[in-house]
This record gives sequence, C-alpha cells and structure tokens, in this order.
Amino acid sequence: MPTIPMPNDLSTLLMVMDLIGVFVFGLSGGTLAVRKRLDIFGVLVLSLAAALAGGVFRDLLIGAVPPASLRDERYLLAALAAGFVAFFFHRPINRLGKPVMVLDAAGLGLFAVAGCGKALAFGLAPLPAALLAVLTACGGGVMRDLLVAEVPRVLCEEIYAMAALLGAIIVIAGQHLGLPPVPVAVAGATAVFVLRVVSVLRGWSAPRAPGT
Amino acid sequence: MPTIPMPNDLSTLLMVMDLIGVFVFGLSGGTLAVRKRLDIFGVLVLSLAAALAGGVFRDLLIGAVPPASLRDERYLLAALAAGFVAFFFHRPINRLGKPVMVLDAAGLGLFAVAGCGKALAFGLAPLPAALLAVLTACGGGVMRDLLVAEVPRVLCEEIYAMAALLGAIIVIAGQHLGLPPVPVAVAGATAVFVLRVVSVLRGWSAPRAPGT
Amino acid sequence: MPTIPMPNDLSTLLMVMDLIGVFVFGLSGGTLAVRKRLDIFGVLVLSLAAALAGGVFRDLLIGAVPPASLRDERYLLAALAAGFVAFFFHRPINRLGKPVMVLDAAGLGLFAVAGCGKALAFGLAPLPAALLAVLTACGGGVMRDLLVAEVPRVLCEEIYAMAALLGAIIVIAGQHLGLPPVPVAVAGATAVFVLRVVSVLRGWSAPRAPGT
Repeated sequence: MPTIPMPNDLSTLLMVMDLIGVFVFGLSGGTLAVRKRLDIFGVLVLSLAAALAGGVFRDLLIGAVPPASLRDERYLLAALAAGFVAFFFHRPINRLGKPVMVLDAAGLGLFAVAGCGKALAFGLAPLPAALLAVLTACGGGVMRDLLVAEVPRVLCEEIYAMAALLGAIIVIAGQHLGLPPVPVAVAGATAVFVLRVVSVLRGWSAPRAPGT
Repeated sequence: MPTIPMPNDLSTLLMVMDLIGVFVFGLSGGTLAVRKRLDIFGVLVLSLAAALAGGVFRDLLIGAVPPASLRDERYLLAALAAGFVAFFFHRPINRLGKPVMVLDAAGLGLFAVAGCGKALAFGLAPLPAALLAVLTACGGGVMRDLLVAEVPRVLCEEIYAMAALLGAIIVIAGQHLGLPPVPVAVAGATAVFVLRVVSVLRGWSAPRAPGT
Repeated sequence: MPTIPMPNDLSTLLMVMDLIGVFVFGLSGGTLAVRKRLDIFGVLVLSLAAALAGGVFRDLLIGAVPPASLRDERYLLAALAAGFVAFFFHRPINRLGKPVMVLDAAGLGLFAVAGCGKALAFGLAPLPAALLAVLTACGGGVMRDLLVAEVPRVLCEEIYAMAALLGAIIVIAGQHLGLPPVPVAVAGATAVFVLRVVSVLRGWSAPRAPGT
C-alpha cells in the first residue's frame, strides 16, 4: 500500500475537518432514525452508516483496507457520539434546522476535498478521483436513506452532488497547477460549502430532462 | 495477507458452526423470497444474499479477498442448498416458526463470535472488531431485506444487533484476559443465543428516543 | 495481484464488448432516472451505477483494486456518455423499446462471459466464478433499482439471471475442455443473448415455489 505523500499540516487539517464531517453526518443519520421511531440500536446503526459509509466505499475502491474508520477509533467514536447526541437531543437539533444544514454543507465540502485528495494520492486519474470524491461525500447519505427504504435525497433534490463535484474539480485543478495543497483544500471545501448553502437558501436545483 | 493464528480445534469448531449459520440464514432469505412470490432464481439470490453478505462485507473490510465464501465452495453449497430447501419446503418451514427463530438465533451467535475472532486475528482494535462482528451477524439480514425493498428488520425490531454485540464483547474480554479461545467462543455464541431467544419470547425491545 | 493470462485477441474482444455493455446498461439506468423525474445529476448517478456496479463488485471480491472502471477512464466516459444520451434523447430511446431490450441482452451476455473469465483468471473455482459472472451481469441492474427504492427487477421477472448463468457455464465448460477461449466467449455471449431475447419475446419465466 502506498503511503500518502501529504504534507503534515495538510493531513492534520484534513483529519480535524474529517472528524467534524463524520460527526455532522452521524447527526443527520441519527436524527432521521429518531424520526423513523427506530430504537437506540437503529439510531446508532444509521449514525454509523451515514458518517462512515462514504469513506469506507472510497477506501475499499482504492484498496486502502482496512478502511481508515476501522483503523483509527476516533472515527467510530465520533460517529457513535453523534448517534447518542441525536438519540437524546433530537428535539433541539430538529429545532435548529438551518444550522444543521449548514454543518452538513461543511461536512460535504470536507469529505469531497478529502476524498479527492486521497484518491489522487493513491494514483488515480482525475476523472475517477472526482467520482470517488462525490462518492465519499454523498455515499453516507445514500446508505442512510437506503436503509430506511427511501429514495436517496441526493438523487432527487437540490444541488448536492454537484457541489461535491465542484470541490473535486478545485482540488484536481490545484494539483495540476502545482498550487500549495493546504490553501487549495481550504478553497475547495469553502466553495462546496458556499454553493450548497446558497443553493438551499435560494431554492436552486439542477435541470430536469427536457420534456418530463 | 496475515494467516489467521487460530488453534486448530477452534477453527474446526468455527467452521462447523459457520456452515450451520450460513444454512440457517439462507433459509431465512429463501422463505422470505417465497413469501414475496419470487421465482426460483430470486429465491436462490435471496438465500445467497442472506447467508453470505455479512461475511463478505467483513472480509472486504479486513482485506481478506477473495472472501471465504468464494474460496471455500462449502459456503456457496450450503447457501444454495438452503435456497432449494426453502423453495420446495417453505410450508413446513413456516409452520415451524419458533424453531426457525431458534436456529436463526444460533446462527446470529456463531456469526458474531466468528466475525469478532476473525477481525481480531487480522489486527483490528476492539471497537472496530466489535463493529465488524455486528456487521457480520446482521449484514446478511440487512441485504436480504433491502433487496425486497423493506426497511431491514434489525433496525426496527427486537434485540438483535444488541445480542450480536454482547457476543463480540465476550470474545474481546476473553482475549484481553488471556482465556482459552474455544470455551470463550462457545460462551459468547451461547450468550447471544440465550439473549436473543429470551428477548423474543418475552417481547423485550431496546429503548426508543425520549419524546418520540 | 496476478496478471490476467489472456490471449491478446480475447482481451481486445472482451474490452470492446465490455464498453458496449457499459454504454447499454448506462442507458438503462439513465432512462429509468428520467422516468423517475430525477435531475441531470441523478440521471448520471443512475447511469454510472447501472453501468459500473456489477464490475466494481466483481473486482472488489477478487481483489482487483482499484477496479477496472476506475483505472481505465474509458469505462467512466462510456457510462457518462450514456447518461447524457438518456437525458437528452429519452423519448426516442423509449420509443425504441424492443431494440433497447435487445442491446441490454447483448450487454448481459458480454458481462456474464467477461465476469466469468476474469474470475477464473484470478484463480477462483468454477462455482464461485459462476456466481461472480451472474453478479457482474446483474449487479448493475440491482444497484440501479435499489437506488430508486424498487425491488430489483432481476429478482421478480423473466429469465435474466438464469441467462447469465448459462453464459458462465459455457465459459467454464469450455475452459475445462481446453477449447480455444475466443470462440467459447463468443458462443457464451451469444447463448445468453438468444436465451434472454427469446424468453422475453415468448414470455417465458422461471418457476415459482409450489403452492404459492
């Protein structure tokens, strides 16, 4: 397995943002499970799935096994903590509404950037790396929705996967131009965040097929 | 790939119990498929998914590829045999009812113990190993239910995943205390079995979130 | 990772047929997404899932990571092209109807043969190789249907997986008898194609369980 040639400050930054992303996505899974009246175990399962599935898929596909979330217990602990928080505090969380969407957008940006960076570091070409970035950022939400037998919201609502793709494009362009990786990562995550938040606030959506 | 440093009698025991678990979970998939009026191929697919998916996920995640169920044909044959039995004998099986639940609880115990043992043998820390044990024990049932577009029963019913977690905790504690692995495995599987059966017979369930 | 000991003309043939299969399955995912009124991104996601999921599962299970569809960008491009074609031309495609079914049957035959050949080349035994062939051929369609919360059609309709199994059996028998691989591959894919098309035209279906 190749070691990831990342400068140390970048990997620390990505790790911190990654854990925040895990926690926030875990909250989204846990609160959905509470809404579906699942028991405490179902809440934890949905938290884990939403928080970790995207990264697990990415790591399986690039051959980085066991996945990071099984090697570094902080991932699991962050996801479980999110599940317990959702279980006990689902009402204040739901009352927040907008703040949760904002945190989720932050997680989306981080996961897209981290997913793309890791895929490039493992030697993938730009197009597959962008695909993996979108998969990392959206995979947890897809798994969360599939487990409660709903059509994944990313498929039918708003500019979500497209925002993740923007982050990947920025990371790939930055690497191609030889720009320093930390500012590029920050710029990419910020762009995802801004596009996602603005698209929700303004009700933007992607085009449907002509004639449907 | 690390070889699994298991004493021979333990691995024989686990193999036998594993195959019984595969067969029993295969029966659960096959009878569900018959109830859904699927054809013979759908019945076999659901038997295979229910019997093998949990172990396949585990092996993918720890990097043990090809998974055991593709390297050792006895797994496939046991799952296929369960599918044919479900296809031709679904009525007497459904009349049994309780006995099937009892066999399923036995499979749950074995899969939890075997999943945890294999994860520890591949060098995972206790918390990820426990997660993998639950995934091994419950993954087949989740896949089975997803394929027929139902919310996985493990998410919303009874003490199922929690029983699997108990088995993992016993295996991890036993290894930590340096106890001999065969009695620990038997004790773990038995504890899962008893907790699961008693929880069904008494109608126990895990708590829901406050205020739902 | 073992290199695949394929004669060059076979691997060229398989590659061409593989890319046609990817494109055709991508069309099936994309047109379903349009019918479900998904936006452009949902259409592309469903095209990618339908076109690539089967091969990705196969490559994960035999340890060929990153999967071929992430290493060779032609796969991604073919799947994305199919998504855009479905998005802009869904009405003429749907009017074709039968031709799409015919192309889909061709894709099924190729994927079954290529999946089986790759599994054998990675040293799997015949029974697991046949299972992988069916998984490769049907996995994309299963993923496509799961993502829109439908019971996978392969589980409940017509002779589909069974046709894929026939292709695998022909490839395995051919290798066992030492026959030259190119004609065997062509014969296997043709047999799948004919069985599938005839079964649709004649309304054949696999048997249901007795007494349901």
